[in-house]
Amino acid sequence: MNFDIIRAARAVLHVTDLEKSRQFYETALGFIVTEADDSAIYLRGLEEHVHHSLVLKKAEIPAVEAISYKVRTEEDLDRIGAVFEKQGCKTKWIEKGRQHALGRALRVQDPSGLPLEFFTEMVTVDRLLQRYDLYRGARVQRIDHFNNLVPDVQKAYDFYIHELGFSCSEYTEDKDGKLWAAWIHRKPNVHDVAFMNGVGPRLHHTAFWLNDPMSLINGCDVLAALGYSDSIERGPARHGLSNAFFLYLRDPDGHRIELYNGDYLTSDPDFKPIRWDLDDKRRQTFWGAEAPDCWFNEASTVLDIETGEKIETHQPKLKQHKPIFAV
Amino acid sequence: MNFDIIRAARAVLHVTDLEKSRQFYETALGFIVTEADDSAIYLRGLEEHVHHSLVLKKAEIPAVEAISYKVRTEEDLDRIGAVFEKQGCKTKWIEKGRQHALGRALRVQDPSGLPLEFFTEMVTVDRLLQRYDLYRGARVQRIDHFNNLVPDVQKAYDFYIHELGFSCSEYTEDKDGKLWAAWIHRKPNVHDVAFMNGVGPRLHHTAFWLNDPMSLINGCDVLAALGYSDSIERGPARHGLSNAFFLYLRDPDGHRIELYNGDYLTSDPDFKPIRWDLDDKRRQTFWGAEAPDCWFNEASTVLDIETGEKIETHQPKLKQHKPIFAV
Amino acid sequence: MNFDIIRAARAVLHVTDLEKSRQFYETALGFIVTEADDSAIYLRGLEEHVHHSLVLKKAEIPAVEAISYKVRTEEDLDRIGAVFEKQGCKTKWIEKGRQHALGRALRVQDPSGLPLEFFTEMVTVDRLLQRYDLYRGARVQRIDHFNNLVPDVQKAYDFYIHELGFSCSEYTEDKDGKLWAAWIHRKPNVHDVAFMNGVGPRLHHTAFWLNDPMSLINGCDVLAALGYSDSIERGPARHGLSNAFFLYLRDPDGHRIELYNGDYLTSDPDFKPIRWDLDDKRRQTFWGAEAPDCWFNEASTVLDIETGEKIETHQPKLKQHKPIFAV
Amino acid sequence: MNFDIIRAARAVLHVTDLEKSRQFYETALGFIVTEADDSAIYLRGLEEHVHHSLVLKKAEIPAVEAISYKVRTEEDLDRIGAVFEKQGCKTKWIEKGRQHALGRALRVQDPSGLPLEFFTEMVTVDRLLQRYDLYRGARVQRIDHFNNLVPDVQKAYDFYIHELGFSCSEYTEDKDGKLWAAWIHRKPNVHDVAFMNGVGPRLHHTAFWLNDPMSLINGCDVLAALGYSDSIERGPARHGLSNAFFLYLRDPDGHRIELYNGDYLTSDPDFKPIRWDLDDKRRQTFWGAEAPDCWFNEASTVLDIETGEKIETHQPKLKQHKPIFAV
Repeated sequence: MNFDIIRAARAVLHVTDLEKSRQFYETALGFIVTEADDSAIYLRGLEEHVHHSLVLKKAEIPAVEAISYKVRTEEDLDRIGAVFEKQGCKTKWIEKGRQHALGRALRVQDPSGLPLEFFTEMVTVDRLLQRYDLYRGARVQRIDHFNNLVPDVQKAYDFYIHELGFSCSEYTEDKDGKLWAAWIHRKPNVHDVAFMNGVGPRLHHTAFWLNDPMSLINGCDVLAALGYSDSIERGPARHGLSNAFFLYLRDPDGHRIELYNGDYLTSDPDFKPIRWDLDDKRRQTFWGAEAPDCWFNEASTVLDIETGEKIETHQPKLKQHKPIFAV
Repeated sequence: MNFDIIRAARAVLHVTDLEKSRQFYETALGFIVTEADDSAIYLRGLEEHVHHSLVLKKAEIPAVEAISYKVRTEEDLDRIGAVFEKQGCKTKWIEKGRQHALGRALRVQDPSGLPLEFFTEMVTVDRLLQRYDLYRGARVQRIDHFNNLVPDVQKAYDFYIHELGFSCSEYTEDKDGKLWAAWIHRKPNVHDVAFMNGVGPRLHHTAFWLNDPMSLINGCDVLAALGYSDSIERGPARHGLSNAFFLYLRDPDGHRIELYNGDYLTSDPDFKPIRWDLDDKRRQTFWGAEAPDCWFNEASTVLDIETGEKIETHQPKLKQHKPIFAV
Repeated sequence: MNFDIIRAARAVLHVTDLEKSRQFYETALGFIVTEADDSAIYLRGLEEHVHHSLVLKKAEIPAVEAISYKVRTEEDLDRIGAVFEKQGCKTKWIEKGRQHALGRALRVQDPSGLPLEFFTEMVTVDRLLQRYDLYRGARVQRIDHFNNLVPDVQKAYDFYIHELGFSCSEYTEDKDGKLWAAWIHRKPNVHDVAFMNGVGPRLHHTAFWLNDPMSLINGCDVLAALGYSDSIERGPARHGLSNAFFLYLRDPDGHRIELYNGDYLTSDPDFKPIRWDLDDKRRQTFWGAEAPDCWFNEASTVLDIETGEKIETHQPKLKQHKPIFAV
Repeated sequence: MNFDIIRAARAVLHVTDLEKSRQFYETALGFIVTEADDSAIYLRGLEEHVHHSLVLKKAEIPAVEAISYKVRTEEDLDRIGAVFEKQGCKTKWIEKGRQHALGRALRVQDPSGLPLEFFTEMVTVDRLLQRYDLYRGARVQRIDHFNNLVPDVQKAYDFYIHELGFSCSEYTEDKDGKLWAAWIHRKPNVHDVAFMNGVGPRLHHTAFWLNDPMSLINGCDVLAALGYSDSIERGPARHGLSNAFFLYLRDPDGHRIELYNGDYLTSDPDFKPIRWDLDDKRRQTFWGAEAPDCWFNEASTVLDIETGEKIETHQPKLKQHKPIFAV
C-alpha cells in the first residue's frame, strides 16, 4: 500500500440521554471526559494523549455514525479516498474545524455498508496514565478495536486485507471451510477490527483495552455497586480466540462495549493466522460458558454517511448464525 | 456451650475413579496429595498443616460419607456426642487408628439427616505455604465451608445455632419472611456451613479458600487448558451474599466444589446478621448473571453413618426452589 | 481465662495536623471517614461495621494514646482489669459516653509500659464492603494488628500468653536461643499484636488488612500520584515471617502504617508456632531486600494513661537490634 | 527509511554453567526451553511463535555475543548492512544454517561498539500461550527490549533515530539539557532499546514482558521459594519513566534481566516524547525507592563480532552517573 492506517481511533455513537451515558462511561467505566456540552460528550482512556476515542452525540435514535481510523499523513487520506472511490463506495470529506478537535476527515461507506472515517490529526491533551488518583471503575486505558456483523465476511476480509493493508491474526471457518469470522489488524495486536457472519452491516461492539485482569474484576464490582448489573451481558471469561480476558456490557442505549485485556503481539510478517472451527467450544469461551443469544443477535444500527439514515441490513451468506456445541 | 467446634475440617467423598479424581484435584486445582493408595487419596491445601482436608475414597457410587468438623478437646467430643444423643440422632464412635491419620471420631446423622463427623486430632504435616514452586492450578489454600440442601432450613438453623454454638452471618428470607437459607460459622468468617431450602439432605458443595482473585482466574485458565471447561458450572463472579468471588466446579463424579475468596471477618459477637430477600438478584450474583438450573437442582447424595446406604431425600418445606427475577 | 479478648480493635493516635492526616488516610489510603471535627477524625476500613478502627486526635506532639482491643462482655472488662491490677499495672476506667462512639473502656499501662485499652461496645455503622464505587487508594478493609518495640520481649510474651490468653503463631530467636520477637493472636490469623526487641515501649506500627495483593500495588500508585512517594518506607515485598505481602508507610506525623495481605488461618489449638532465626534473611523479606535502618530504629512514642506524658524508653535486653546477614 | 526493523528479537548471551542457567530461566522464571544441548539452550516466552528469544551459550566468561532485531525482508537486511558500512562500522554476514534455527544474519558493531544482529527468518514453533498448564514462575510471555550503557547517548540516539528509523517515546536530560538517556522503539510500545549514560558499551539488561502485575508478584515468590532471593536486585516497583511495573534480576552469571509490564501504546506518529529531569525522583521509581548503586554500575561485557574479544569500554561523556535526590 502507499498509505498507512495506524489504528482504530474513535467511535462516534448516537445516544438518547447524555446524562445517563455520562454516568455509565465516566463513573462506572472510568473514562475521562475531555469535554462535554448539550450535544455531545468526548471521552478518552487513561493513557490516551489524544482528545478522545469515543464521541457520544445526542440523538433521537441510538446508532453508529462512524467507525474511525487514524492514518499517518494527509496524503495517505487522499490515497485512501481514491481506494474507496475506485470500489464505487460513497465518500465524503469533512474539512478541519467542522468536527470538534479533529482535522480533515474522510467518511466512506465501506463495501459492507459500514460508515468509516479516516483522519490524521486530532487535538492532543494531557495523558493521565500516571494520575492514578483519577482511576475509577474499570480503569479504561485506550480504545482497542471494533467488531462488526456483516452478511459477507469473505468480501469484507478481502477488501481490508488486499486494498487497505490489514493483516489477519485469527479466523473462524464453518464446517464447509467458509470464512465465518476474521480478526484483522494494523497495530500489532490481535485486531483493530473484526468481522462476523450475521445480519448486517451492524456494529457488534467497540472494545477498550484494560491494563490487567483485576481492573476488569474491579470494574464488575463498581458496575454492580452502581446498579449496572443488568448491563453486564457476558463474562467475565476468556476467549479462546484472541486469548482475551473479556467483559461485554450494554450501555444505556444498548451499544455493546467490550472490556478487553490479554491478547498478544502480532508484529511479525511471518506470523501465521490461527484457524478455529466455528463449533470449537473453546473458540468462543475458553472456559466453556456459552454466550447468550442476544450476544449473537443484537447489534447497533449504522448510518448512511450522507443522509444519516439507517443502512438497510441483509441476511448473512452463511446460514449458521452461532456455534453449535454438541456436548 | 461447654464445647468448642473449631471449624469445618474435612470432607469424605466417595468417587468412582481415583485416577480421574487425582488428575482433577491435584493437577488442575493444585491440591497437595499427602498420601494416596488404591483405596483413597488424601489431599490438602497449600497452607494446611494437617494431613488432609479432603478424602476421596474409591466406591461404586459417588456419595458423601462425612462432613467433618475439628473440635478443641477430646472432652468436647463426648459433650457433642451427648447433644446428638439427646436429640435422638444416630451416633457412632470410630476409635483412633481406625481412620488413617485421624484420632478418635464421632459420626452422627444430624437432625436434617446429614452425616457429620467430629474429631480433635489429625496427624500434622509440613505446611507448604511458602513452597511457591509447588503452586499449581487454582492454588487451593485451605478448606473453608460446606453447603447443604435441606428440606427444613429453620430446623437445621435452630439446631446449629442453639445446640452447637454456631453464629449466623447472613441469611435469606422468602417473601413470607420464612428462612430460605442461612450462612453460619464457628471460625470468624462468613461460614463453616450453609443450609439452603431444597430436596435434601444433600451436600450442595464443599468450598476451598483461595488467596486472591487472580488465583481463581488462573485456575480457570489451567482447567480449560487441561480440558476441564465442561467442569466449570458457574462463575467466575461475585456473590452478593458473603461478598465472595467464586467459581463452581463439578468434579469427575459430579461433586460440586467451590473456589472461594473475598469474604470478611465476623469475629464480633455484636455483628448483626445480614438479611437478603430471596428474589434480590444481587444476593445470588452481585454482577447479575443467573445461576443455571443444575446449580439449584443437583447435589451429592449423603450416606447413612451406620449402613452406608443412601439417605432418603424429602421435598423442601418452602415451595420456591430458586429465586425469581422479574427483570 | 475467664474472659475473651476478641481482636485488635482501634488505635488512638495523636497527630499535629488533622487536614494533612485526613488527606493521607482518606484520599490516599482509602479509609472511610465516619466522622470528623476540629479535634479528631474517626476512620474505618471498607468492611468494618463499627464506627472506627483509627482515631486521629489533634495534639502538639505525635504520640500513641491507646492500643485498643475489643472484648466479648462487660464482665470480661472487669476481669481483665483485675488481671492488670494484680500485676501492679496502672488502670483507669473511662465511662460510656466519655469517649465518642464508645462504651465503657478500661485503660491500662501494660507490663512493658504500653498504653492499652479494652472495650466491649462501639457504635455500629453501615458496612461499605459492597460499595465498590467508594473504593479508593489502597482500599483499606479492616484493622489487623499492632507491632510494638519493647525492651524485654520474653516478659511481654509471658504476660500476653499466660495472663491474657493470646496464642503464638510465629517467633524469632537470636543465636543464643533468646526470644527476639513474637507474633501472637486472639482472632485466628497470624497476629493481633507482635513484640520486637528494641528501645521501648514504643508502637512500631499499626497494620490494616487489604483484600488482595493488587490493592497494595494500586495503593502504591495512588500514593505516588498524590505525591506521597516519600511516605513509602519499605516494600512492597513479602515477609517470610507471616507470609504477608506488605507495605510500610509513614504518615504525615511519622506514625508507621502497614498495609497487609496474605497470612493464614491459625484457628487450630494444635498449630505449632513457627520458629525463625533472627539472621535468616528470608524471615524479614522472603524476597531478599533488607529493611532500611529507620524501619528498625524509628517508632511512635507512647503516653502515660494518666498523665498523658511520654513514657520513658529503655534499651532492649538483647543486644542485637536488627538481623545481620552474612551474604 | 527503505527498510523495516520489526522489533527486538533475541539476545545471545554467554554463560558459564548451562545447568545453573537452565534452572534459573526455565524453573524459576518460566521460560520454555525449545531446545538444549551441551553447548547452548534456546528459550522462548509463552506467547512466542518463534524458536527462541534468548540463547545461552556455554563459554568461559559471561558476555554478550549479540543483541538481535528481526527485520521485514531479506532485502531490508542488505539495506541495513549498507547503512552500517557507510558509517564505517564492522559488519559480518552469517549465512542461513550456520546459526541454529536462524536464517541469514547480519552482525555489526554499532557506532557505540555494541554487537548487533539483524535477521529476517527464524524457525517457527507452537505458541504455548493457551497451555496454561505449562505456566511456571513469572510466566514470561515475550522479549520486550534491551537497555545499554553507552558513553555518548546523543550519538547513539542520533544514529538509531535518523539512520535506523527508531522513534523516541521518553528521554532524560541532565540539568544542562544534555541527553542522559533515551527510550526508543520500532514496535509501538515504549521501547525496543534504551541507552543510558555510563561506562560502555555494555548491555545493562534484557527485558521480558509479562502479562500482568500478579505474574511478577508470583514470580518473586517462586524465585524466593527456590532460593533465588539474592538474585532480586531491584523492585518490584513502578518506573515513572515508561510506567512499567518492574523487577530486576541478576542471572547466575550476573546478566541482568528485567521483568516488565504496564507500558503503553506509542503507535501514533504525532506522539510527543516525554521529557524527564535526571534528578526527578519519580522518573526512576515512581514509588520512591532508590535503585542500588550496583544497578547503575554493573552491566554485561559485550564482544567484538569478529574476534569474540571483549570490547573496551569508555567513561561516559556526561559526568553524572546516577540521579541525585535532594530529599
